[in-house]
Amino acid sequence: MAPHDRHTIHRQHIHHGWNNAFEPVLRIAPGETVHFETVDASSGQLHRESTAADLVTLDLARVNPVTGPVYIDGAQPSDALKVTVLSFKPSGWGWTGNIPGFGLLTDQFPNAHLHHWRVDPGLKPAMYGPGGRVPLKPMCGTIGVALAEPGLHSVIPPRQVGGNMDVRDIAEGTELWLPIEVPGALFSVGDTHAAQGDGEVCGTAIESALDVSLKIELVKDARLRMPRYVTPGPVATHLDQRGYEVTTGIGPDLMAGARVAVSEMVELLARRYNYSPIDAYMLCSVCADLRISSIVDVPNWVVSYYFPRLVLE
Amino acid sequence: MAPHDRHTIHRQHIHHGWNNAFEPVLRIAPGETVHFETVDASSGQLHRESTAADLVTLDLARVNPVTGPVYIDGAQPSDALKVTVLSFKPSGWGWTGNIPGFGLLTDQFPNAHLHHWRVDPGLKPAMYGPGGRVPLKPMCGTIGVALAEPGLHSVIPPRQVGGNMDVRDIAEGTELWLPIEVPGALFSVGDTHAAQGDGEVCGTAIESALDVSLKIELVKDARLRMPRYVTPGPVATHLDQRGYEVTTGIGPDLMAGARVAVSEMVELLARRYNYSPIDAYMLCSVCADLRISSIVDVPNWVVSYYFPRLVLE
Repeated sequence: MAPHDRHTIHRQHIHHGWNNAFEPVLRIAPGETVHFETVDASSGQLHRESTAADLVTLDLARVNPVTGPVYIDGAQPSDALKVTVLSFKPSGWGWTGNIPGFGLLTDQFPNAHLHHWRVDPGLKPAMYGPGGRVPLKPMCGTIGVALAEPGLHSVIPPRQVGGNMDVRDIAEGTELWLPIEVPGALFSVGDTHAAQGDGEVCGTAIESALDVSLKIELVKDARLRMPRYVTPGPVATHLDQRGYEVTTGIGPDLMAGARVAVSEMVELLARRYNYSPIDAYMLCSVCADLRISSIVDVPNWVVSYYFPRLVLE
Repeated sequence: MAPHDRHTIHRQHIHHGWNNAFEPVLRIAPGETVHFETVDASSGQLHRESTAADLVTLDLARVNPVTGPVYIDGAQPSDALKVTVLSFKPSGWGWTGNIPGFGLLTDQFPNAHLHHWRVDPGLKPAMYGPGGRVPLKPMCGTIGVALAEPGLHSVIPPRQVGGNMDVRDIAEGTELWLPIEVPGALFSVGDTHAAQGDGEVCGTAIESALDVSLKIELVKDARLRMPRYVTPGPVATHLDQRGYEVTTGIGPDLMAGARVAVSEMVELLARRYNYSPIDAYMLCSVCADLRISSIVDVPNWVVSYYFPRLVLE
């Protein structure tokens, strides 16, 4: 037991979706540390021998399992939960899938495609296709607390209480603040990624079970409206040393601009590095970042897509 | 004359808006370097003694002047212009304004507000309010070529030929590729900023005349659809050493999400650092970055707003 692991929740304690009627599997005092074992985003439906065909038959009711929930003593609506990411323990394997009907360019990429990754225990960069080396930065894709609204809520959309936020920088050292809506908060975490780019454009990242240790604190009467987070240092030093190739999408709609920028990057990488377009798209999803460069010069905005050159150069 | 300054265009050679009938002020061969003198985004309507009242009476037909146009020999539609940013020469002064009716949170900040900056010739960080230190990174806000469509086009919106892109990273060392639509390309540049965050949320950055030297090359038959660019190294080392405070906006619309994230950051900075909300908003515009963290978890997306902690800590 690591010194900061005060509690462990084993991987059989997962749930699908959010429901404030779920029974807590653990009750802690604020300030305690919990080690969460996680299950990959397919709930174990995919494994090292799976093929693209297995993506088509995925039982979607079982995707994005989260481990928990944890009841935090004294937590009340209008408080915030402050969760500090302490460390990750990789499981050795991960996958990236293009799931039909899901992803930013689903019209352009309608067919299932699956890539297996080796996730090195020491987090050495993961190899991909001709010359690709993707630096790893583990993160929690789904991390949140229960909604006040009763009933079962899909795990897919992120909400004001967090959940499936898929934020690249909820990584080691980051302090995440979540608005609490129910007594005890009912915190859960899962959907860990070994690496992801801002946007997670193909819909999946390097999906990989990583056990994670979190310190869980309470901030009374914080009155947060949305999650916020604090990073302890630079967020892209694993990626940015050789700069970026950047494509843009310019026009009156941010979503359309994002689609154009990503589509242009896929074409650039495919042409220059001899990737198939679907492979380039999936590579983008795990390491390239969507940014809003300008959002005030009416009526057109600029969405930029940053691909780190060290991955392929 | 610096060794790479083959040509100089003086600041009287500015134009307002884009029009492919504008007479070139210089004709060059591909591969040559041009030193552009620029005028600030107000065309000199604002100066070191201006007040917020002067923002209200700005003649908007004269904003965002660009220096040029330059005719590049041999440039044809379907070619690309490759522009490398070599160096900037600061002018010592800059301004940030909240112009009524303009900016991401115009409903929340309806009144004119003006801040004057000292732009150090050696680009030392610029001071702002109680304890703010904004690292400078000069960039070209407006940089582009003429549209094929005849007539005068407003300079405000960026378009597929570039223009008022306001991209933070079109800075020293960056190589910008622009799609050419008319013979000779008719390239112009202006609207230089001493610093800007991704999004430029209040509508202005550190608006400052900075002369800029550019190398202008031609790539035949590049068939670009949108501008793209390549950065020579990391893009945020001037900002990121102490990490970021990050707010989020989560929901089904990226624009609404951006507004929430920025609004939350303004509130956080105002409360914690004793800034007035308008001062916090204008500070965000010059150094904080809008990112799209996730864009696939239907029906909600996560827009994140990254404020670099070293500016205030």
